[in-house]
Amino acid sequence: MRITDDDMKSLLRALQQTLSLEIPITEHLGITVEGYDGECLTLTAPLEQNVNHKKTAFGGSLNTLLTLAGWGLLWLLLKEHDIEAEIVIQESIVSYLLPVTRDFSARCRQPGPTVIAAFENTLRKKGKARLELYSEICEAGAVATAFKGRYVALLHQRVHTEQDWGKNSQ
Amino acid sequence: MRITDDDMKSLLRALQQTLSLEIPITEHLGITVEGYDGECLTLTAPLEQNVNHKKTAFGGSLNTLLTLAGWGLLWLLLKEHDIEAEIVIQESIVSYLLPVTRDFSARCRQPGPTVIAAFENTLRKKGKARLELYSEICEAGAVATAFKGRYVALLHQRVHTEQDWGKNSQ
Repeated sequence: MRITDDDMKSLLRALQQTLSLEIPITEHLGITVEGYDGECLTLTAPLEQNVNHKKTAFGGSLNTLLTLAGWGLLWLLLKEHDIEAEIVIQESIVSYLLPVTRDFSARCRQPGPTVIAAFENTLRKKGKARLELYSEICEAGAVATAFKGRYVALLHQRVHTEQDWGKNSQ
Repeated sequence: MRITDDDMKSLLRALQQTLSLEIPITEHLGITVEGYDGECLTLTAPLEQNVNHKKTAFGGSLNTLLTLAGWGLLWLLLKEHDIEAEIVIQESIVSYLLPVTRDFSARCRQPGPTVIAAFENTLRKKGKARLELYSEICEAGAVATAFKGRYVALLHQRVHTEQDWGKNSQ
């Protein structure tokens, strides 16, 4: 499906609404869908609601924003490919490299077209596919928090089993 | 320092207060310091505030509770050893193995005495030491979310540098 600029604006509004209505804690964290340039999704959050004992951004909030940046990117990818699927996160690793001292943004970039094509092919064929996505939070030109998440998409018509959550899913 | 039961109750109240006052988002997540048996710290959170689009616990909230269980355990360890130090998380990996469908608890267990002795020795000698801690959230007898975090403690009198945050710290 070819997405126009207006479609994209409407998709981003839908993503914001999905986060706000279906994951209510994102409202308390002040998470905003900032933008998507067709390759990279940016989510932001204010320092004030997410501050820790050292007056820098709390690790749990940084990880949450990064997790949602990947989740949101995959949500957009599925919409762009006109696929109705559920997305869950299976595993993630996050490195807290530098303190974050101001309002912060997590950016998640699309993987290359070959990876996306293989993911889409597996998902349509097997009803289930996994995708590794990288997100990061930068401050003053340096990566402050780096994140890698493995997400699983499950076609809606598929009956879920507990194994969908397991580490060996693909 | 030998900790009495009354000291421990007062420490747990202090930990709850630290979380509530200094990391305000923990109030929105409904995080409670449930107990500590001298080896294992348990934190809890209600499903209601932490629900996601599938009516199970949101991954960001699970990760946050697990991160804080490790942070809290190290906070208690330092108090027990009468050490004034700051704690930051450096890296973590989390596996979401099963959905969490009710109020949930994260448990973090102390490492063995040899690991703790080596950690304390490094911290007192170098002013900085790292510790890997494992936490988990169980449901119906099975591990639903597994977490490993690498934390760094920094003695208060030490001047912090950006390298304290880097991946090569110890």
